[in-house]
Amino acid sequence: MRYDFGSDNTAGMAPEALAALTQANDGFARAYGTDDVSTRAADLIRQRLDTEAEVRFVFSGTAANSLALSMLAWPFEAVLAHHAAHVCTDETGAPGFFGQGVGLIGLPGFSGKIDVGALTAHLAETEVGHRQPPAALSLTQATEYGTVYTHDELKALIDPVKARGHGVHMDGARLANAVAAGFDLKSIAGLGVDVLVLGGAKAGALCCEALVMFDTSLARRIDNRLKQAGQMASKGRFLAAPLLGLLETGAWESHAAHANAMALKLAEGIVTRSPHVLAHPVEANAVFVRMPAAAHQRLNEAGWACYRFDDGSVRFVCSWATTVEAVEELVETIAGIG
Amino acid sequence: MRYDFGSDNTAGMAPEALAALTQANDGFARAYGTDDVSTRAADLIRQRLDTEAEVRFVFSGTAANSLALSMLAWPFEAVLAHHAAHVCTDETGAPGFFGQGVGLIGLPGFSGKIDVGALTAHLAETEVGHRQPPAALSLTQATEYGTVYTHDELKALIDPVKARGHGVHMDGARLANAVAAGFDLKSIAGLGVDVLVLGGAKAGALCCEALVMFDTSLARRIDNRLKQAGQMASKGRFLAAPLLGLLETGAWESHAAHANAMALKLAEGIVTRSPHVLAHPVEANAVFVRMPAAAHQRLNEAGWACYRFDDGSVRFVCSWATTVEAVEELVETIAGIG
Amino acid sequence: MRYDFGSDNTAGMAPEALAALTQANDGFARAYGTDDVSTRAADLIRQRLDTEAEVRFVFSGTAANSLALSMLAWPFEAVLAHHAAHVCTDETGAPGFFGQGVGLIGLPGFSGKIDVGALTAHLAETEVGHRQPPAALSLTQATEYGTVYTHDELKALIDPVKARGHGVHMDGARLANAVAAGFDLKSIAGLGVDVLVLGGAKAGALCCEALVMFDTSLARRIDNRLKQAGQMASKGRFLAAPLLGLLETGAWESHAAHANAMALKLAEGIVTRSPHVLAHPVEANAVFVRMPAAAHQRLNEAGWACYRFDDGSVRFVCSWATTVEAVEELVETIAGIG
Amino acid sequence: MRYDFGSDNTAGMAPEALAALTQANDGFARAYGTDDVSTRAADLIRQRLDTEAEVRFVFSGTAANSLALSMLAWPFEAVLAHHAAHVCTDETGAPGFFGQGVGLIGLPGFSGKIDVGALTAHLAETEVGHRQPPAALSLTQATEYGTVYTHDELKALIDPVKARGHGVHMDGARLANAVAAGFDLKSIAGLGVDVLVLGGAKAGALCCEALVMFDTSLARRIDNRLKQAGQMASKGRFLAAPLLGLLETGAWESHAAHANAMALKLAEGIVTRSPHVLAHPVEANAVFVRMPAAAHQRLNEAGWACYRFDDGSVRFVCSWATTVEAVEELVETIAGIG
Repeated sequence: MRYDFGSDNTAGMAPEALAALTQANDGFARAYGTDDVSTRAADLIRQRLDTEAEVRFVFSGTAANSLALSMLAWPFEAVLAHHAAHVCTDETGAPGFFGQGVGLIGLPGFSGKIDVGALTAHLAETEVGHRQPPAALSLTQATEYGTVYTHDELKALIDPVKARGHGVHMDGARLANAVAAGFDLKSIAGLGVDVLVLGGAKAGALCCEALVMFDTSLARRIDNRLKQAGQMASKGRFLAAPLLGLLETGAWESHAAHANAMALKLAEGIVTRSPHVLAHPVEANAVFVRMPAAAHQRLNEAGWACYRFDDGSVRFVCSWATTVEAVEELVETIAGIG
Repeated sequence: MRYDFGSDNTAGMAPEALAALTQANDGFARAYGTDDVSTRAADLIRQRLDTEAEVRFVFSGTAANSLALSMLAWPFEAVLAHHAAHVCTDETGAPGFFGQGVGLIGLPGFSGKIDVGALTAHLAETEVGHRQPPAALSLTQATEYGTVYTHDELKALIDPVKARGHGVHMDGARLANAVAAGFDLKSIAGLGVDVLVLGGAKAGALCCEALVMFDTSLARRIDNRLKQAGQMASKGRFLAAPLLGLLETGAWESHAAHANAMALKLAEGIVTRSPHVLAHPVEANAVFVRMPAAAHQRLNEAGWACYRFDDGSVRFVCSWATTVEAVEELVETIAGIG
Repeated sequence: MRYDFGSDNTAGMAPEALAALTQANDGFARAYGTDDVSTRAADLIRQRLDTEAEVRFVFSGTAANSLALSMLAWPFEAVLAHHAAHVCTDETGAPGFFGQGVGLIGLPGFSGKIDVGALTAHLAETEVGHRQPPAALSLTQATEYGTVYTHDELKALIDPVKARGHGVHMDGARLANAVAAGFDLKSIAGLGVDVLVLGGAKAGALCCEALVMFDTSLARRIDNRLKQAGQMASKGRFLAAPLLGLLETGAWESHAAHANAMALKLAEGIVTRSPHVLAHPVEANAVFVRMPAAAHQRLNEAGWACYRFDDGSVRFVCSWATTVEAVEELVETIAGIG
Repeated sequence: MRYDFGSDNTAGMAPEALAALTQANDGFARAYGTDDVSTRAADLIRQRLDTEAEVRFVFSGTAANSLALSMLAWPFEAVLAHHAAHVCTDETGAPGFFGQGVGLIGLPGFSGKIDVGALTAHLAETEVGHRQPPAALSLTQATEYGTVYTHDELKALIDPVKARGHGVHMDGARLANAVAAGFDLKSIAGLGVDVLVLGGAKAGALCCEALVMFDTSLARRIDNRLKQAGQMASKGRFLAAPLLGLLETGAWESHAAHANAMALKLAEGIVTRSPHVLAHPVEANAVFVRMPAAAHQRLNEAGWACYRFDDGSVRFVCSWATTVEAVEELVETIAGIG
């Protein structure tokens, strides 16, 4: 089975990441994220975001998102998110585990983007003691369906939430792809995001996400919090170094641009060479295709791993490691099986 | 500041680990621990332990221990452990976080080993509804104070616990060092341990510990459990490969033997060349020294990172990366400052 | 504002309950539920259910349900329930709080009864590590929409769940009303229910629900569990006595029969005297009416408290304290406002 | 067995409490604590404390204390308390359950009062990421050992805690007894207590404690918090009415004064008539006696329930229901068995 397009988790570390890890491995270093490599990586992230912020490196996006939400909502409150957001559908209830029952309220919206009307309608609802009222908004950039919010779209969602004193979390597992699609990292702080998860793993680093706290009051005793949650790396340089390598070389962005370009090429190939249509605009590194069950099965049988999503479409994901040849092979196969 | 002896977390990955990681990085692989590298590493661990068991790889010892305890005790129950065990003193209350308030009962005992009499006395206590009664025993091998339980010592502690139907957890963050000191891995299953945490990070791997469930009924939906807890690596091969490299080459044991030898050499140097005495027998890779505050401070000022422990002694830890030269330099310095 | 029909929580204790409480208040008694009153009440419940079971008395239905679910599902698992069940909509996420993130999967079905097809379809879904798979079924008898499951309907839902080794919880906050409608208490154990919450508060007792564990293995250290969860009454007789009074006198059933009869009378009055139609069959003590917003508002303005539910209908609830006169007054008012 | 002195949980409701409950039981009332009885009881409490505060009524002291601590400390932080405090020894780890692992740090001190030196020494310790640093202080008034803090003693403990920005909780399960001993309720707010649990059950009410939030920002969505935690009474008047009855009549204080007087009489009898000595000063309603195991056993065999505490002494507790005759009988028996 070929996993090239199964997920952006199927690729290894990018060369720049591996090189930086190998280099950082030499000698002795302070433990628990107090090493120089971690400091430099955090500095580069603050620089990219053009703002002050507390930055820590954790092992998994699931944990990063859940910890972020636990900073913004109490167990008796809820977080508003797109119903197809990773926190709602693919983290095995982790926000409730880390947040001792914190609620998730799924909102509708086309192609993974929260509908402004649905959001404001929910914010306007009367609070009652027997429900978990919203305390925060969780946004995903790029979205689960491979689209990218514009600055104005984000502002329209964030402003009414901040106006009520609620918090804002951004799941940036594929933030690099959003940036490659034109989204400006420097706009995040100004938009009012309180906690950002800046993705490393899908961008070609080790299993590592940066937890960025713009509202630094949320970082109260953050090292104790991370340690207790099993998200404090004893050998912190292993987490930070690969991401540092990507950021220092600009590969964090350039690899994402490559992944996005491969997705576009794949989409064009499918649209022009097969009878299938796209389920969502292709703005980042994923292609969602409306494909009958039989065709999907033949594709799997032909050796290509790919999965059907909650909206009924089949997803193909590109990464830094996706080759033009693989795209062409896949298009050829899809065209062939009809 | 030199961190050679500050902890076994200050060293990088051992060469065998890094080589295996580099090699495993090539190409695409299935995500979430279903890759071949993870399978091979799990197989090797079962082979080393000479038994069937469910094996998973997680990011941190804190999480591994806490998840193990949450399998053995409900929130309204408690875990018996040495009062100086890592789960009691150095994990920021993680067992309570992962186990929603599960209790820890600290037991006394010389040099990190639980006193059998104290254990059996506690087991004999009448249970009352307003206390958390014990449901499990947590053992550390090698112990926090650098000693190694014999098979008979473990048996004397485990048997009365199993006789009451309670579970047994073994924190093996430094299990390699215990093995290098003569402890037989193949004895663990027979002793009645239910869940073992087999250490990778301190043995020269990436931040990775193997969660080994001998009682496979405890592994019910373990992948869901790990995913929810933020301990399921999307790119699982990154976790497994370095440990695989150590196990395949025998470096997991040989590096630990080197670390133990360095500790012994260091201890001998200190005892023969300085006025200080050892606080505990040196059986694994750590040396605990009774050292006045002033001497400790002069040692720090001389550039050597080392920390005072709860028993009042100062700890020096050796690892795969410790050199004879560094040991000699440190002994020289300690001798010099008096 | 008149609260006669606002909820079955607006009535006081029934006379038999208050008398029993007053009587039980005399003298000194053992604390923490080990008193004679608690024992007798538990005995009577076992007798009514015609089976052995562990029985405890807790303060609130929310806690009782959540504790029951925490016995049946781990945090990384989920509970199947009707989407309008109290545990899903009216307990502020309590199952997640007591169960550290345990999931709830809302199933459809007419008038508060789970649709068998929807249930079996869900049970047939492939489990994946990033979702919380079902571990238990939660049933409500009588349902939130005032209907009563027949024995065969329950069996059709429970059998496929038990066949998979999952657990079954029954929320019986209004179990007395179901019994008054013909449901046989003695059938519950045989149906395979593992944990039952037998309602006291809505039946005319103090704030008290009986937690009945048919699967007594689930009751492991139940007193520790309840104490830790803040649900162990120090003066246990206060909880048990009112329920004992109701059970000893048969008022638990006869008051429920009265409440059901009042609901039927109310429904008939509304249907025959007003333009409004019923949203659900009236089988227990609640009447759900399709009523325009303007009519609902006029009714509130006329001094009658009543609330709109998630299905859009307006609910009226009867209790032991509902009088014929009040029903007639309400019907008159509804008829008058049109 | 006679339970007169086993605990202050063995007595029933005081007459004033039962009368008020009976009276409040009439008619229909709004649910969930929004009824008039609850409002009046809250008003009386604010009046007694001479300050603004949010007041809610919950079922159990265990829950009240745990909820209070969860407002003051995160899971990765700890609460400082006397090692013999109820939250440490008698609540089955409830603070960790409600607070998802929040830590408890037991401090020493004579007769249940925290030693100021021990407290300040702990506050001065360097924080490290792998421990749970203190975020709050928990005080018990009257203490577990029947003593009563003076205003100055409390101030000496609270001031250094507040100076660090930490919170303060007061467990007032026996606050009425402290008041009867001369402690001024009006001083609590000024001392800097953030959350007070004002005891009802031990004072002669139903199972009910008032949760008083002086720092009203801690009451954010308190009704959602209580509902989720299973501590929101549907029929709220049942909780509030008995306490209201005690407060309106002054019986809350006068019954406590009686209990204190009975304790003093009991202590005098034991000291003058038996060979046993007191373990602690008798300042509230409990008497702790140094008594050999054999004497304790003979006393139990003679029909008097009483329990040995962690400090080795045997406890006798008086309440509103304790009679002079019972005290004399008990003294007689103790004197007789030697």
